[in-house]
Amino acid sequence: MSIMLEEIYEQPQAIAATVEKEYAAVAALVTDLREREVRHVVIAARGTSDHAATYAKYLFEIVCGVPVTLAAPSVFTLYDATVNLAGCLVLGISQSGQATDVVQTLSAARGSGALTACITNVVGSPLTRVSDHALICRAGEERAVAATKTYTTSLTLVSLIAAQWANHKGLLNGLRLLPEQIRATLALDEPIAQAVERYRYIEECAVLARGLNQATALEAALKMTETSYLVAKAYSMADFLHGPIAIVSEGFPCFLYAPDGRAYPSMVELALKLREREAEMVIFARSTEILELAQRPVALPVEVDELLSPLVYIVPGQLWACHLAQARGQNPDKPRGLSKVTLTR
Amino acid sequence: MSIMLEEIYEQPQAIAATVEKEYAAVAALVTDLREREVRHVVIAARGTSDHAATYAKYLFEIVCGVPVTLAAPSVFTLYDATVNLAGCLVLGISQSGQATDVVQTLSAARGSGALTACITNVVGSPLTRVSDHALICRAGEERAVAATKTYTTSLTLVSLIAAQWANHKGLLNGLRLLPEQIRATLALDEPIAQAVERYRYIEECAVLARGLNQATALEAALKMTETSYLVAKAYSMADFLHGPIAIVSEGFPCFLYAPDGRAYPSMVELALKLREREAEMVIFARSTEILELAQRPVALPVEVDELLSPLVYIVPGQLWACHLAQARGQNPDKPRGLSKVTLTR
Repeated sequence: MSIMLEEIYEQPQAIAATVEKEYAAVAALVTDLREREVRHVVIAARGTSDHAATYAKYLFEIVCGVPVTLAAPSVFTLYDATVNLAGCLVLGISQSGQATDVVQTLSAARGSGALTACITNVVGSPLTRVSDHALICRAGEERAVAATKTYTTSLTLVSLIAAQWANHKGLLNGLRLLPEQIRATLALDEPIAQAVERYRYIEECAVLARGLNQATALEAALKMTETSYLVAKAYSMADFLHGPIAIVSEGFPCFLYAPDGRAYPSMVELALKLREREAEMVIFARSTEILELAQRPVALPVEVDELLSPLVYIVPGQLWACHLAQARGQNPDKPRGLSKVTLTR
Repeated sequence: MSIMLEEIYEQPQAIAATVEKEYAAVAALVTDLREREVRHVVIAARGTSDHAATYAKYLFEIVCGVPVTLAAPSVFTLYDATVNLAGCLVLGISQSGQATDVVQTLSAARGSGALTACITNVVGSPLTRVSDHALICRAGEERAVAATKTYTTSLTLVSLIAAQWANHKGLLNGLRLLPEQIRATLALDEPIAQAVERYRYIEECAVLARGLNQATALEAALKMTETSYLVAKAYSMADFLHGPIAIVSEGFPCFLYAPDGRAYPSMVELALKLREREAEMVIFARSTEILELAQRPVALPVEVDELLSPLVYIVPGQLWACHLAQARGQNPDKPRGLSKVTLTR
């Protein structure tokens, strides 16, 4: 068993630990958010953590009604800009807590009067030292280069913040059900290990979703890119129709993430368009209507609130990336020329 | 001559017209921004216009010091979220002025007390009707499906807003030099028509930049995707090092946009890393140091302020997409299954 696969399996337990052990730390952050009347969130992150930031953007805007800005760290690190962030929450996300540009962004923001917080897997890391509130992914050490359990525990912390800030009972209850739902979803391991065979020789593909699961598409595409060296490009369904759909000809592989919910009808519309073009579709969904349009349907065994669906739907994406790498003769634990910690100025 | 190429050549004139004819409309917007003490900008856009939004994010943050949020339109259109945007400028960008979700986002924002403005090429379009200020790209009708002159005139309006809002003399002067600089850059037409031959059979590539020219990488990648049906994926150099660089093996085609300025040293660093991996590099730059690392250097004939460099550096990117499509036997004016106006809810 690869380390990546082991860590995929550790997620139910890690998420349960995060909810339990970080509940009070999140409550303290939320108290501060209320006292300071924060009405704008800015998030700094890179790579996988940036996908957690994408989820946070949708969730905070939908559930908490606050606009969320995804920071371009180079604005601060290259251009030395002085952006007025007084009264904002500036949230840094980095599993290692060492992403230099994220640390620098938070440090600058704190200087300009922002409240700062971070989501990281490493207690005492540089990022925690520039944060007023440090929230810790209780994922244990992550050894595989491709992040899995630090991603889902970051999403867990994001949803815990939104749930407490908005006093959203449904989200809080949903979070408690998650570990069991993910455990059930891991039953897809074996069917996915077989399904990937067909894609042994693909060189490129599109990964598609809409709304909240935009984060899932981005993260699933990155996992495949990192471990299988294929050019997997994620698109929002809406942006895809604005031009990139031109790449799709007969047999072009498309991966669709289509959980039930508000974004579902758009995904059906997209699947019908892709079928017209005779695309090859792998569809991750629960509803049979869309699954029937796929050459390779991946039926999720659980029902999940759309707001939390990115935490469940990424799991088959992780399994897919892990098994596809192995089918292609790659070691998913040792991506070519990548290291666990990337330092960028 | 293709319509796309004709329209690429119309850009110097279109930009000059935009600066001259929209100066007063931008001044009126800036007066409102000052009177209302706007300190936060939210931008809604799709496709090519979203790349203009990316440029606006960097420029407004760097030059005006206001945080800029790129809106996720589906937050409003799918999830019916009520996001508190009181006191913000909400800017919609759409060449046709018909992008339904952008119109809906502005309409919702206006209802919640935001100042609204738009950048569009069509006077009287639906988007102008939900905008307190309508800024018009003076590009004339754009007939090619692949947007070129509406992109650069949108960038012109963005920089005109930043220049006036921040009272930035350098930017204002630079804008007046632009038409001549772009005219000079069009001399690359012939050399690029020859250089693309080598890439007749590529199937995928990475397009890389950092900072302000992130917009250039995104837009150049989209042009190639739309007209040549190749999977061209844009990355910020910083994100690229966080994982996707794993796809690069010997001969993998990489396009680098590396104008002089703050982002330049990072691009040299990246080019050296790519050289180690024996990537095939096409580099658009002015400095010989980085050009010497390329298999196919494209030397820009003009010096341009980094703040305005995205307006000049996209031009060889447009030429490249147009000629590459022809070399591959495609008609750049008729991308497979795309229409000029894309309506998404």
